[in-house]
Amino acid sequence: MHHLLGLEHLTAADIEHILDVGRGFVGTGEKGSPKRDDLRGKLVANLFYEPSTRTKMSFGLAARRLGADTVEFSPSGSSTAKGESFIDTARNIEAMGVDVMVVRHQSSGAPLLLQRQLPNVHIVNAGDGAHEHPTQGLLDIFTIRERKGSIAGLTVALVGDIMHSRVARSNIHGLTKLGAKVIVCGPNTLVPREIEQFGVERSSTLDDILPRCDVINLLRVQFERQRSSFFPSVGEYARLFGMTGDRLKRAKSDVLILAPGPINRGLELTPDVADGPNSAILQQVNYGLAVRMAVLKLVCG
Amino acid sequence: MHHLLGLEHLTAADIEHILDVGRGFVGTGEKGSPKRDDLRGKLVANLFYEPSTRTKMSFGLAARRLGADTVEFSPSGSSTAKGESFIDTARNIEAMGVDVMVVRHQSSGAPLLLQRQLPNVHIVNAGDGAHEHPTQGLLDIFTIRERKGSIAGLTVALVGDIMHSRVARSNIHGLTKLGAKVIVCGPNTLVPREIEQFGVERSSTLDDILPRCDVINLLRVQFERQRSSFFPSVGEYARLFGMTGDRLKRAKSDVLILAPGPINRGLELTPDVADGPNSAILQQVNYGLAVRMAVLKLVCG
Amino acid sequence: MHHLLGLEHLTAADIEHILDVGRGFVGTGEKGSPKRDDLRGKLVANLFYEPSTRTKMSFGLAARRLGADTVEFSPSGSSTAKGESFIDTARNIEAMGVDVMVVRHQSSGAPLLLQRQLPNVHIVNAGDGAHEHPTQGLLDIFTIRERKGSIAGLTVALVGDIMHSRVARSNIHGLTKLGAKVIVCGPNTLVPREIEQFGVERSSTLDDILPRCDVINLLRVQFERQRSSFFPSVGEYARLFGMTGDRLKRAKSDVLILAPGPINRGLELTPDVADGPNSAILQQVNYGLAVRMAVLKLVCG
Repeated sequence: MHHLLGLEHLTAADIEHILDVGRGFVGTGEKGSPKRDDLRGKLVANLFYEPSTRTKMSFGLAARRLGADTVEFSPSGSSTAKGESFIDTARNIEAMGVDVMVVRHQSSGAPLLLQRQLPNVHIVNAGDGAHEHPTQGLLDIFTIRERKGSIAGLTVALVGDIMHSRVARSNIHGLTKLGAKVIVCGPNTLVPREIEQFGVERSSTLDDILPRCDVINLLRVQFERQRSSFFPSVGEYARLFGMTGDRLKRAKSDVLILAPGPINRGLELTPDVADGPNSAILQQVNYGLAVRMAVLKLVCG
Repeated sequence: MHHLLGLEHLTAADIEHILDVGRGFVGTGEKGSPKRDDLRGKLVANLFYEPSTRTKMSFGLAARRLGADTVEFSPSGSSTAKGESFIDTARNIEAMGVDVMVVRHQSSGAPLLLQRQLPNVHIVNAGDGAHEHPTQGLLDIFTIRERKGSIAGLTVALVGDIMHSRVARSNIHGLTKLGAKVIVCGPNTLVPREIEQFGVERSSTLDDILPRCDVINLLRVQFERQRSSFFPSVGEYARLFGMTGDRLKRAKSDVLILAPGPINRGLELTPDVADGPNSAILQQVNYGLAVRMAVLKLVCG
Repeated sequence: MHHLLGLEHLTAADIEHILDVGRGFVGTGEKGSPKRDDLRGKLVANLFYEPSTRTKMSFGLAARRLGADTVEFSPSGSSTAKGESFIDTARNIEAMGVDVMVVRHQSSGAPLLLQRQLPNVHIVNAGDGAHEHPTQGLLDIFTIRERKGSIAGLTVALVGDIMHSRVARSNIHGLTKLGAKVIVCGPNTLVPREIEQFGVERSSTLDDILPRCDVINLLRVQFERQRSSFFPSVGEYARLFGMTGDRLKRAKSDVLILAPGPINRGLELTPDVADGPNSAILQQVNYGLAVRMAVLKLVCG
């Protein structure tokens, strides 16, 4: 694996291999454990064209934990402000000896473009438009596997704005390949037509599917990404799709609650759910570091 | 000491222990000295919700000089822009394996809140609202001790905007515990009523107390923090409370001039004073690094 | 060499020594090569008061490749926002134990000011106003020497906005010292009067000088630096001074095309030229790292 652009074109075996390598890194995220030298002498560049806290920090830490050096690029206060094109910026950064570029971009396909233009750099997609966010998908699947033992046979609901969600897309590809049944559930305006062709079931009523779910992944309402309003009000959204303590009681007792974060408390889920025993939200962040270490190590071969 | 939230609840012995440990690190700040490995494998996060140059840089350098890895978080271009709460951001950063969080926040009590919510992370207050800025207090006291030999029996004036100054509060707690006499001196509008209950003397006329002071700490006029005007004009302030060459002549010949910086030249003090032999302003910065190394090492135990 | 403020006051031997040391570092920029420890224990600060991608990143990487620790200072979100003066900021950073300051500033002479005020810090100019950008000049000359074998006897054209270009100034000083013939070519409004006193030839018609040039260095049109319009339109500029495939055919077959970047494709040069075999644009970036390693090592010497 020289690049990670998405989960769509990986096989089940590819995905399981990444998860297995990640498992070996879980201890590395623990406090006080020493640095490794897997990527000693390698240079990993973070190119983030959209705001990010946890993903950028997670990749940076993952790279340094493996012994790599890192550089950060963000478009503000940079040559982008001077009118340089995306590809020219990337080529310039490559010319400084970068081995891996971790790219987040508002345009779907930006990482693929880089991979074609920069044949000597390993490209890792950290989220591109509404296309994919493969390491988020991998860490969600990793968390489910750790908590549930395996993926095959589970029923996993993705709840919320399916249309704009790259997280949903990576989850759908990864989970269905590994044998899970995936239900996408959200307002009709936010679930793409013909989504069933991806092998998923659709629902517009969370309460209907609630009792069948082993895992519920609560997508973030991305106010900053929606150009117009796709649902009447946030109160309406919370009432229909928010995970509350009351809804939790009607779900399986061991239902696993995931959320890619940052969460809007009281909207996608209430604080009692977010902080309760069914929630794996902070574990996702912790496992994310291990998964990203695995990805960085594997693309460097 | 697992945390450093303020000097108010430390004992004189606690403070002296930090200063003593800091003394051992003074050489480390010198050019060309090697890295230590006291905090090897530890991860120190800087969470700065307010602008900062020297404090943020100083903590970052202190951490790396002790062999720690560091991550930087600032709210712009981050999940804060997406509406994530302060505590959720901190929990997410914790989940990446952070050992120490150095926190600056506009709200008094923010570090205490973190300490209660994140029991497994060492919290260091880098300035919270108008509450405390304990490492600034410690480095001021450290500088006085280095230059004067000891603290007990000294008369130290804090001059300026006492009301809004977390630096004043940390100085008052630390200095009085170590036996100094503290005088707070500023416009009546900027000195809290009943400040005497903290064991300090108050004055509204710098010229009156000038001859008695061993140390004068010139607080910064924080234009960015005041919502309304507490004194008629900057010229008026400078005339009454600015330390000038002329005032310096009427002070003790060995009076020590401190300022937490960044200084407004011509306002809190004139350039001849700032750059003259009585000034310890740049020494404060240098000692600050040693003091912060001590704090980081001690909280990690 | 304790500082690098510009190429104007260096001798030909000085410049050649830097280039020779840089040559030894070219391999270091290659992927996977190990870190060196030439500057172990040294602290290099990047003070960038203007936006920059490649120069800031290049200096940071160069410092870390030599084993130095680095700190970054930028005026936004810092004490500059609180009104601190440039020199006070620099003195504060110095007080944290900085050995080398790499400075970019909008004001010509800012690095010289620092060198006079901070006698114990090595100052490296990373671009000051319209004065000099010596490491860009050095890396341009380094690239020419690598591709052409030597500098003496070559005819080098600097094309574009000579007036506002610190890159032009450093190139003129460096290239003429090493025996090249330099032609400055641009709109009359953008070529200073009496530029010939620097030992260069002037031209306002690229097509006239095209056949004689061994090297053509296409200066960037700095929209962000020009306060008023110095040429009728960008189309007009591109038509008269843009390097196109058609113009390239009328130049020497082995003419070397340089551009300091970031480039405006279709303006200073067309994509076929930028990406063609005569272009050394990305090599410049790669060699820039080696040249900056040499400069940092030599000033610390």
